[in-house]
Amino acid sequence: MTQKIRIAALVSGRGTNLQAIVDGCRQGLIDGEVVLTITNRAQAGAVDRCRREGIPCLYVDNRRFSSRESFDAEVASTLRQARVDLVILAGFMRLLTPVLIRAFDGRIMNIHPSLLPSFPGLHPQQQAVDHGVRFTGCTVHFVDEGVDSGPIILQAVVPVLDDDNEESLRQRILHQEHIVYPQAIQLFAQGRLKIEGRRVRILSSSG
Amino acid sequence: MTQKIRIAALVSGRGTNLQAIVDGCRQGLIDGEVVLTITNRAQAGAVDRCRREGIPCLYVDNRRFSSRESFDAEVASTLRQARVDLVILAGFMRLLTPVLIRAFDGRIMNIHPSLLPSFPGLHPQQQAVDHGVRFTGCTVHFVDEGVDSGPIILQAVVPVLDDDNEESLRQRILHQEHIVYPQAIQLFAQGRLKIEGRRVRILSSSG
Repeated sequence: MTQKIRIAALVSGRGTNLQAIVDGCRQGLIDGEVVLTITNRAQAGAVDRCRREGIPCLYVDNRRFSSRESFDAEVASTLRQARVDLVILAGFMRLLTPVLIRAFDGRIMNIHPSLLPSFPGLHPQQQAVDHGVRFTGCTVHFVDEGVDSGPIILQAVVPVLDDDNEESLRQRILHQEHIVYPQAIQLFAQGRLKIEGRRVRILSSSG
Repeated sequence: MTQKIRIAALVSGRGTNLQAIVDGCRQGLIDGEVVLTITNRAQAGAVDRCRREGIPCLYVDNRRFSSRESFDAEVASTLRQARVDLVILAGFMRLLTPVLIRAFDGRIMNIHPSLLPSFPGLHPQQQAVDHGVRFTGCTVHFVDEGVDSGPIILQAVVPVLDDDNEESLRQRILHQEHIVYPQAIQLFAQGRLKIEGRRVRILSSSG
């Protein structure tokens, strides 16, 4: 029996990826447990989810902090106290500072709704529609100090249809996000992700 | 019976995409004919292909011209005289100037071995390996005055495997190039490509 990893989620929004990950843990697809959620928005839909799922949800009001660094230091301290193995960003609408990134180096994941390095930053689905690409998708990556620039773990591809708009494309990508984010977390839980420079090697399950 | 379009190819290299397009025309997959090839490299493998296939191949030595613009003016003049409907770049290793682009506005296509806008410019396969993406591919696009930036017609996706190098990835992408480049040309021949800003709409074959 593998020991379960302790996962914390940082959320600002509806938390559908959080839900997919909680479900993955419950169903045994992820050898892990979401032990803590931190939000900077008290009204986030994710907060209700945590209540329903019985997951501790901590509201940290970023307006109480004089700087992003002091907010991140508080979050890092909380995560350390909770003995967290992996931090997942699930629609967390704040850029992390080196204070938090270095405290959990190689142990923070994000998912971005584009095939990075195409369309980093805000509104990637609208960017894809506007650019006229035929395919886009989502990318699970480790977080580094750039914007959506960290080593890529997994990606999934979806077609862009001629009559797509931002919302129809968002839905199609989101469906894939709910598949690959749990997969990436399970690879981490199994110790199968090896960061080599900006590439991530996936080790075989036997090794 | 559809009238066949007159296609010219600009080549500098081995000409495997040219071969795929010539084959597509012969097999009736493209309602077109390659009536002329222009090369700036007398030793290009594509020159031998043209000889075998009975396609006129014109060598234009760019060193004879004082500027890129005067070279492009000569090429544009030759293409006009040959009553060319569509110009395809098939491994043509020169940037086009506005002189040629404006003369054949919306009638010049290129194929680039990446999922644009990721990895424009040189060595896109090596860029993909180095960046650690899980998927890459190729993009057929109309040529505009930027580098690999024109409106996208078709794309195809291939996986990147952990043990890929530039050459193995190049081969996997090339296989897809030989499929989508003829497809894009046939859509053009059928009058089904409509450029709208930087997007390309594909009209239904009935309409």
